[in-house]
Amino acid sequence: MTIAIIHGSSRENGNTEYLTYQAISKERGTHIYLRDHTIHPIVDERHADEGFQEVEDDHKKLIGQILTHDVIVFSTPIYWYSMSGPMKIFIDRSSQIMRDPDYAHFKQGMKGKKVYVIAVGGDQPRIKGLPLIQQFQYICQYYSMSFEGYIIGKASRPGDIKNDKSALEAASSLLQDR
Amino acid sequence: MTIAIIHGSSRENGNTEYLTYQAISKERGTHIYLRDHTIHPIVDERHADEGFQEVEDDHKKLIGQILTHDVIVFSTPIYWYSMSGPMKIFIDRSSQIMRDPDYAHFKQGMKGKKVYVIAVGGDQPRIKGLPLIQQFQYICQYYSMSFEGYIIGKASRPGDIKNDKSALEAASSLLQDR
Amino acid sequence: MTIAIIHGSSRENGNTEYLTYQAISKERGTHIYLRDHTIHPIVDERHADEGFQEVEDDHKKLIGQILTHDVIVFSTPIYWYSMSGPMKIFIDRSSQIMRDPDYAHFKQGMKGKKVYVIAVGGDQPRIKGLPLIQQFQYICQYYSMSFEGYIIGKASRPGDIKNDKSALEAASSLLQDR
Amino acid sequence: MTIAIIHGSSRENGNTEYLTYQAISKERGTHIYLRDHTIHPIVDERHADEGFQEVEDDHKKLIGQILTHDVIVFSTPIYWYSMSGPMKIFIDRSSQIMRDPDYAHFKQGMKGKKVYVIAVGGDQPRIKGLPLIQQFQYICQYYSMSFEGYIIGKASRPGDIKNDKSALEAASSLLQDR
Repeated sequence: MTIAIIHGSSRENGNTEYLTYQAISKERGTHIYLRDHTIHPIVDERHADEGFQEVEDDHKKLIGQILTHDVIVFSTPIYWYSMSGPMKIFIDRSSQIMRDPDYAHFKQGMKGKKVYVIAVGGDQPRIKGLPLIQQFQYICQYYSMSFEGYIIGKASRPGDIKNDKSALEAASSLLQDR
Repeated sequence: MTIAIIHGSSRENGNTEYLTYQAISKERGTHIYLRDHTIHPIVDERHADEGFQEVEDDHKKLIGQILTHDVIVFSTPIYWYSMSGPMKIFIDRSSQIMRDPDYAHFKQGMKGKKVYVIAVGGDQPRIKGLPLIQQFQYICQYYSMSFEGYIIGKASRPGDIKNDKSALEAASSLLQDR
Repeated sequence: MTIAIIHGSSRENGNTEYLTYQAISKERGTHIYLRDHTIHPIVDERHADEGFQEVEDDHKKLIGQILTHDVIVFSTPIYWYSMSGPMKIFIDRSSQIMRDPDYAHFKQGMKGKKVYVIAVGGDQPRIKGLPLIQQFQYICQYYSMSFEGYIIGKASRPGDIKNDKSALEAASSLLQDR
Repeated sequence: MTIAIIHGSSRENGNTEYLTYQAISKERGTHIYLRDHTIHPIVDERHADEGFQEVEDDHKKLIGQILTHDVIVFSTPIYWYSMSGPMKIFIDRSSQIMRDPDYAHFKQGMKGKKVYVIAVGGDQPRIKGLPLIQQFQYICQYYSMSFEGYIIGKASRPGDIKNDKSALEAASSLLQDR
């Protein structure tokens, strides 16, 4: 199976990335770092007469890439109990692409993909991160993707994640059959 | 009591705003439309040697405004089962302001504020919007703000909200004692 | 449409019942008070060689009654952030009835029913009652029932619910089209 | 530290117990099997003139036992997306003991205890079991107990849990520092 990893950290080599590499090394899979791409926040023009204005950025290219993979790993630090801003901006733009005639196959193309979430937070993330997990579950339902698993790690300062042994262990077996 | 309303819609006069005006008219309170302000996504430099780089945008000004009010109403459309991108970007930046020496009083200043949330979504929002409400509750806990109430409306197309009588009624009494 | 109301309060004329009667009076619908019936907790014998032992109580009779209605209202006080014990015992026993040859039609018979939940609690019920609502949603999903709406009221001492105007209003319109 | 394990399974040696023994063997800790004790559902008489009627069963004895331990492990199968009936009945009765003059120290005695939850379910338990975890978190908040961790295992038929390697691994390290 082919695996795309979408990294939502704004910081390189942070705790979330460290945990994610336990699940899938840099050498495996297609690692997409949202911070390396330009993605503009959606402007909701679903109901404008002319529909959405074309936006010049990297969103479509990334969607094109993701569509070619069987498995998607969403890797995000937990900011204020939900996904990071870059991840949110990326996901919000799906509403636009679904109305793009060039991507009429988008929703159908997402169907059946296997989804994993890796999230790291500092404030009781295994409890206060649960709404975030439920939101990803609803996203999966929407696209008829299969939500296969998730890991929530605990870390605040750089390197903290190395102390969360149970998250590291869980990560190392998360994708082992893929 | 003084009331600040933070509008997270990217679209003017949409369903979420309509519902919010039922709770508090344009004439009352301080209405802040995030779409009218420039706010950049946070770049997490909490752990960089030099700390956060100064960002030139409207975030601080808005925080300054909010701090002078007793009540905060977060008004957001539900995008992908969570708050809108502009609202998320706005909230994420709090992590920066908390480390800004000029705003050393920020967290303390938020304490005790009364918070309301008004959210509108199209896909079973009264169920699938619950994680969003839980996230706002965690935000309130963090700042020791009091989460006083919320309303979830159902609407997709322009004007739909006018059919959600129970949300409209609930909105009209949400802030009546404030 | 015919409406069955399942009351899970252990106390007569308490806050939960008061709120429920705002939605549907004693004169309308079939009101089932679980406290007036004997229902034994399930003993999980799904995997015993002989399967479930027949249990002598009122559970089957109530299920028979419910199956004849189009709409089910679950009315429960919130005990420790979830449904009352009598309601839980009642629902748990469904696992048994699904293996009862006399009720081979049970799961299919529940399909498509419209479900409402009315719950009343004392400790921030509009927030801390949300997991309970999510659980009812999962139950609805399991049976392919349609979760149409819910109301969470706030009350601790007898009569308190009369002060929760927004819950009372919401209740009075909950079933108005049924 | 002394550890009390409260088993809520109605079936002996089921999946939930198997997983729990990975965390803490039968030889360690005080294992309480609710099915071996008589505990009556609460009858809410908080507001009756005479208060609660004395109930003749094993509840007080168990509470007495639990109070002497530093750590509590709640071990429950997931029935209909929440805790088992016996566990629910047990927890609901706390509302009574809090008004029992002989147990005036109960709430204070629970304060600071460390809590773990082990739950096993068959229908997407790692997602659909999350509301259950949130409810235990609220219970912990109420008593000012510290919710230290939880494990959700996946199993339906006898022995299934042996295939949930990640849950077994997580269980084996759950209490290792206690």
